[in-house]
Amino acid sequence: MAEITVSAFRSVPPLVQGLVRDLRVRWALEEAGIPYQVRLIGPEDQTSDSYRRLQPFGQVPAYEEDGLALFESGAIVLHIAEQSEALMPTDPRARLRTRTWIFAALNSIEPAIQNLAEIDLFNAGADWAIQRRPAVVERVIGRLSNLATWLGERDYLEGRFTAGDLMMTTVLRILRHTDLVAEIPALEAYRLRCEARPAFQKALADQMAPFASTV
Amino acid sequence: MAEITVSAFRSVPPLVQGLVRDLRVRWALEEAGIPYQVRLIGPEDQTSDSYRRLQPFGQVPAYEEDGLALFESGAIVLHIAEQSEALMPTDPRARLRTRTWIFAALNSIEPAIQNLAEIDLFNAGADWAIQRRPAVVERVIGRLSNLATWLGERDYLEGRFTAGDLMMTTVLRILRHTDLVAEIPALEAYRLRCEARPAFQKALADQMAPFASTV
Repeated sequence: MAEITVSAFRSVPPLVQGLVRDLRVRWALEEAGIPYQVRLIGPEDQTSDSYRRLQPFGQVPAYEEDGLALFESGAIVLHIAEQSEALMPTDPRARLRTRTWIFAALNSIEPAIQNLAEIDLFNAGADWAIQRRPAVVERVIGRLSNLATWLGERDYLEGRFTAGDLMMTTVLRILRHTDLVAEIPALEAYRLRCEARPAFQKALADQMAPFASTV
Repeated sequence: MAEITVSAFRSVPPLVQGLVRDLRVRWALEEAGIPYQVRLIGPEDQTSDSYRRLQPFGQVPAYEEDGLALFESGAIVLHIAEQSEALMPTDPRARLRTRTWIFAALNSIEPAIQNLAEIDLFNAGADWAIQRRPAVVERVIGRLSNLATWLGERDYLEGRFTAGDLMMTTVLRILRHTDLVAEIPALEAYRLRCEARPAFQKALADQMAPFASTV
C-alpha cells in the first residue's frame, strides 16, 4: 500500500481547533480505512520554498502519496473517495452527484459561512464588521435554507452517506459559534448524524491531540 | 451523442456580463468540441421548485445530460474535462493535478477575489466597505503573488493548458475592474494567453449574445 503523508498544523488558536481543513482529509482516510502519517508544520514551514512547492499557498492540508503531491482539501478528499465505496457509490452517475456536493459544500456554502467566521472570530467589534454582519448572516441563512429544502426528509444529501456529506459537515461546523444551524432542526440533526460516525470522531481526536501538548 | 443543456441568465447587469459562471461550462464544452443547448432563465425560474430540483441554490449553471443533472461550475467543468484531452492529460497523476488546480482556483483564489468584487461592484462607497477594503485587497494580492510564484516561467499551471487554467482564468477575470492582475506582468500574460484561445472567445460571445438583445 502506498505511503500517505498529510500535513497539519502543530498548533492553532483554540477558536479554530477542530476546524482546520486537514480534518476533512483525516476523516476521509478513516472512512476508507487507509492508514496515513501526519507531518506537523508551523509558520516557518508555511513560508518555506520546499513546502510551497507542495502547497503553493502555504496552507494545510498538503497530501503526498509515493511521489504524487496534491493540495486543496476538496481535491484530496475526492481522490480518497474514489478509492472507497464508504465515500462514494459505484454507480457512475451517483459518483458524479457525490462530486457535485463536494463542490457545492466548498463553493455554494463555505464562502458565505467563512465570511461570517471572519467577522465573528477575527474581527468582532470592528466598526465595519458590526455594519456588515447582518447582510452576511442573511446570506448564510439563505444558503442554509436552500440546503435544508434540498435535504427535506433525506438522511443524507443523496440518500446515503458520501464524501459530499463529509465535506458539507465540515463546512457547517464552521458555524459552531452561532445557533444558525441549530435553528434549522433537520440540518442540525444531519450535522449530528454525520459527526456521530466513528471515523469523524477518530479524525477529530487525532487533529486535536497535538494541540493539547503545545499549550 | 448525449443531448446537453446548460442554464444561463437571460439578462444580467453590465457589471457582471462576461463573468457569470456558465461561461466556464461553455468554454469547457467548446474546448472539448461538444455541442450543447442553452436554457436561458430569469428570476422566476431561480425560485421555482422545478429549477431548484436541478440547482438547489437557484444559481447558474445547471447542467443536464440525458437525465443526469449536475450543478456547480467546478463539478461540471471537471466532468467535461474528463472526456477531452484538450482539457486534461491522459496520465492519471496529471489528471489529479488538473483537478487540484480546479479546486485551487475555486477555493484558494476565488473567495478572496469575490469578496473584493462584492465590495467594489455592489457596495462601493458604503462605510463598511471603505473600512474593510484595504485588508481584502491585501488578501487578494497575497494569493495572486502565491500564484505568480508557482507559475514562475511556466506558460500554464502544469506546463500545458488544462481545465485548471480554464477555471483560474475565469476567476482572475473577476478582477477586471482593478489593476491587480496587470500589476503582475507574468500573471497578466497568463490570463491573456488563456483568453486568446478561440474556445474562450466563442464561449464569451455566446454568453454575451442574449444580453445585447435585452437592453
